[in-house]
Amino acid sequence: MMRIDLISAVPELLNSPLSYSIIKRAQVKKKVEIHIHNLRDYAYDKHRQIDDKPFGGKAGMLLKPEPFFECIEKLMSERKYNHIIFTLPQGKIFDQKIANRFSLADNILIVTGHYKGIDDRVREFFATDEISIGNFILSGGELLGLVIVDAIVRLIPGVLNDSASALDDSFQDGNRIEAPQYTRPSEFRGMKVPDVLLSGNHQVITKWEDEQSIVLTENWKKINNIVE
Amino acid sequence: MMRIDLISAVPELLNSPLSYSIIKRAQVKKKVEIHIHNLRDYAYDKHRQIDDKPFGGKAGMLLKPEPFFECIEKLMSERKYNHIIFTLPQGKIFDQKIANRFSLADNILIVTGHYKGIDDRVREFFATDEISIGNFILSGGELLGLVIVDAIVRLIPGVLNDSASALDDSFQDGNRIEAPQYTRPSEFRGMKVPDVLLSGNHQVITKWEDEQSIVLTENWKKINNIVE
Repeated sequence: MMRIDLISAVPELLNSPLSYSIIKRAQVKKKVEIHIHNLRDYAYDKHRQIDDKPFGGKAGMLLKPEPFFECIEKLMSERKYNHIIFTLPQGKIFDQKIANRFSLADNILIVTGHYKGIDDRVREFFATDEISIGNFILSGGELLGLVIVDAIVRLIPGVLNDSASALDDSFQDGNRIEAPQYTRPSEFRGMKVPDVLLSGNHQVITKWEDEQSIVLTENWKKINNIVE
Repeated sequence: MMRIDLISAVPELLNSPLSYSIIKRAQVKKKVEIHIHNLRDYAYDKHRQIDDKPFGGKAGMLLKPEPFFECIEKLMSERKYNHIIFTLPQGKIFDQKIANRFSLADNILIVTGHYKGIDDRVREFFATDEISIGNFILSGGELLGLVIVDAIVRLIPGVLNDSASALDDSFQDGNRIEAPQYTRPSEFRGMKVPDVLLSGNHQVITKWEDEQSIVLTENWKKINNIVE
């Protein structure tokens, strides 16, 4: 069974996305165990302080190194981690290839910052993987940690009921957007499902889906300036 | 005050990330109100069914159009939305420019899919903005919805205590990664904070930070194949 540990200064943030739907089901099925660690539990000074002003005069508060060292070293003494992932602006932008690779691990530790981030010595000392989510700013790394967990967990064999359902998703096969999908009713407010999907002819359907997929993928690359 | 509405088939997922830290504080300060809508509340058939098999024989379940039309049209009858955002693989990849633009809105509606997604007629009929989070697959659009909310809310004037704290973040100024930051202790386990940050000379500190920022940004572009 895969084990995922998450360290956060605001661990309550992580609760609900880990407690419903596929991530919940994966835990119930014993495909993954997920442990959340409250950074504050590893602050041993009398005020349990976890943040402090950054050197150099910048605004905002930075998470101190000591509680991270305490927590990470305790976890590392208990098991060997395949990946110690830091969620950081400067990291490699997360993609399905990285998710596929992480999904093969036994033990993953995800370290998330909050506010202005973490004293850089923590990253320098521990990080095996520095992961970004793109060119934008969040109030913490927790949501990115959750994104990584979700993307990994659904790839663990046996988590999704129908493994075909994962294989034909957008991006599972490189930069490919899936064809549009429709369900009943076949006509709703004058908007009809494309005839081909109602034909029952799987060869024709697959051809149509491939054509649609190519158009959507080319458009996606164009609007996002993606060159392959 | 900005208003954000979120529609989800698994609304419980959204609870904790909207109830702590900066997003919580923004609501308490009356800078934003956030409303979560349970798709199931808008399913009026006797089984309250919200999903069905896709036409064409693919695996998995697709969210039906009717509950979305019911919910979105009710919300649209109550106020004018500047953006009706769909979180979709084929969308424009979210970035700080989009976050800055969304942060100027009065009313935002975010529609998130789950499982295999939403009948495409819903997107076609309502979407003003189709937003992706990158080349990877999640079990639903909820986390992306939360990412968008977080990125927007922290930009609303008065939400962050120190506005300077937002302005010098990575990415606020285009593709620019911030210099590494450090806090006390200045020496920890033999790892020292760079002398320049302890110098008190702001001119020298700014020069060092700019140099570090350039190195980190160039490296980030290189590992992510980003060409400007």
